[in-house]
Amino acid sequence: MKIAVVAPSNMLKREAAQRVQAIVDRRGDCELAIHPQCFLSVGHFAGNDEARLSALREVIADSSVDAVWFARGGYGSNRIAEAAAHDIPAAAQRKHFLGYSDGGFLLAAFHKAGLEVAHGPMVQDVLRDGGEAAIERALDWLVRRDPASIEPRLRQPAMAFNLTVLSNLLGTPLEPDFTGVELLIEDVGEHLYRIDRTMFHVAASPGIRKVRQIRLGRVNDVLPNDPDFGGDAADIVEHWCTRSGIAYGGRADIGHDTANRVVPFGRAQPKRPTRA
Amino acid sequence: MKIAVVAPSNMLKREAAQRVQAIVDRRGDCELAIHPQCFLSVGHFAGNDEARLSALREVIADSSVDAVWFARGGYGSNRIAEAAAHDIPAAAQRKHFLGYSDGGFLLAAFHKAGLEVAHGPMVQDVLRDGGEAAIERALDWLVRRDPASIEPRLRQPAMAFNLTVLSNLLGTPLEPDFTGVELLIEDVGEHLYRIDRTMFHVAASPGIRKVRQIRLGRVNDVLPNDPDFGGDAADIVEHWCTRSGIAYGGRADIGHDTANRVVPFGRAQPKRPTRA
Repeated sequence: MKIAVVAPSNMLKREAAQRVQAIVDRRGDCELAIHPQCFLSVGHFAGNDEARLSALREVIADSSVDAVWFARGGYGSNRIAEAAAHDIPAAAQRKHFLGYSDGGFLLAAFHKAGLEVAHGPMVQDVLRDGGEAAIERALDWLVRRDPASIEPRLRQPAMAFNLTVLSNLLGTPLEPDFTGVELLIEDVGEHLYRIDRTMFHVAASPGIRKVRQIRLGRVNDVLPNDPDFGGDAADIVEHWCTRSGIAYGGRADIGHDTANRVVPFGRAQPKRPTRA
Repeated sequence: MKIAVVAPSNMLKREAAQRVQAIVDRRGDCELAIHPQCFLSVGHFAGNDEARLSALREVIADSSVDAVWFARGGYGSNRIAEAAAHDIPAAAQRKHFLGYSDGGFLLAAFHKAGLEVAHGPMVQDVLRDGGEAAIERALDWLVRRDPASIEPRLRQPAMAFNLTVLSNLLGTPLEPDFTGVELLIEDVGEHLYRIDRTMFHVAASPGIRKVRQIRLGRVNDVLPNDPDFGGDAADIVEHWCTRSGIAYGGRADIGHDTANRVVPFGRAQPKRPTRA
C-alpha cells in the first residue's frame, strides 16, 4: 500500500512530514512517498501552477501508487484542478484521493471525472493539538477502508466541502452533479456575515437545490462580527435551507479539527446524456 | 428634487446623517428624506429583513421621491433584494438608485428589473477622510446628472460591482445579463489569495464571459497574505481575464474611498425571449 503525498495548494511543513512519516513507520501497514514538490515555495503556493500540476499528474500516472493524499489546504488547488482532471491516465482509476478544505476543488474535479475521492484529514493536520488521531483515522481509511473513520450518520451518495470553497466552484467547470446527494459543509476562520452571504449564494444555486439534504459540520475559529450577528452558524444554515426549499439534516462530524471524519464521495454516476 | 435614504444593509451612523444633511442644506438644490429605518439595529442589520424591505418598498412606491440613496454598505441587502425587485410599483420607473459595496445586490436586482441604477458613493462615506467630496459627487449625479461625476473612461453599457459581492450573486436570481457590458470591479479588506479565488470563480462564470471587458478599480485595505502572495490585485485580475478569454481593460476610478466615481448602469435591454 503506497500513499503519495503532493501539495496542490500551500507548502507542507517539514515537521508535519516527519511526524506523519513516524506514524506510518510505527504502523507498518503502508508506505509514504512524500513528493519533493510539497516543500517548494513560490509566492503563496507550494511551487508555481506548473510544478504543482506536474507533481499531481506524476503521482496519478504512477501505477505503483495506491492513494494520493493532499498534504494540506491553504489556497491554490483551483488553479490546477481543471487541468488535473483532464485526460486522466488509466492508472488513476484504482487510486483513492483524500483531502479537504482548499483540496475540495480537486475532490470535485476528480469525482466528476469518475475517480474515487474522500473528504478527510490531511498530512499537516498532525500539527493540530491531538493531530495524531486525525492522521490515524485518515490512514485507517486509506489502508483498510475502516468504517470507523467515516462520518457516522452518512448516507450515500454523499459529498463534503468547505462552504467557501463550495461557493467558489459553483458555476465553474469543477461543479459536480449534486442530484440526490447528502451534502456536508464546514468552514473555518470566517465572519458570520460571510457565512450568511455564502449560504445565500450556495442555497440559490440551481445545482445545490438538487441535493437530498444539507448537514453542517463545525464552523471553527469564527471571526468577530461587529455588531454581534444575532444567531450562530447553524441558525444561518438552517435559515437559508428553509428559505430555499432544501432539507436541513442537522449537524455533521466534520470540520477543520482533529475530529474531522472521512466522507467518501463514492463513484460518480456515469454521465447522463440528458444533462447539458 | 427629493432624495430618500434607506439602509438595506447595516445601520447608518447619526453623525454621517447629520453631516450629509448639512451639505444638502448648504447646497439648497435638493431635499433629503432620511428614513428612520436607517437607525434601526437588529443583530448585524439596520432592522430585520422585514423592516429593511418595508422601508425600501415604501420609498420606491412614494411618488414624491425622485431618487433612492443607500445609506451605506456592510452586509445584508442580498437578503431582501429578490423581494424588493418583485412587483415593483410604477412610481419606481422614474427614480434613480445609487449605492455600491453590499448595495450591489440591489443594483443588480433593480437593473435587471428595468430600473435606473448607478454604482457610487453612499451617505456614510462622508465619514471617510475628505468624504465631503464623495458626497458632493453623488449629489451632483443625483440632482443634475453631472458628467464630471462619472468614471472618466466609461463606455456604456456598463456595470460596477464589489468583486466579492459579484461572486456571491452569480447563479442567483439577482444575476443580470452581462452581454457586451463594460464591467468594473473593486474590493476592500480582502487577502490577495481571496481576490485570486474570487476571480477564479467570477472569470469561470458563463455569464461573466459575455462582458465586453473588465476593468479594475481600487483594491483597498488588502489584508496580509502569509506568505507574500507574489503579485498584486491587478496582476491577479489580468491573469484570470487572460486565462478565461476575457478582455482586460486596465484600471478604473472606483473603489471604497472618497475618489469613487459614479458608474451608471443605464437602462437594461428588454428581455430577449431567446435567453432562458
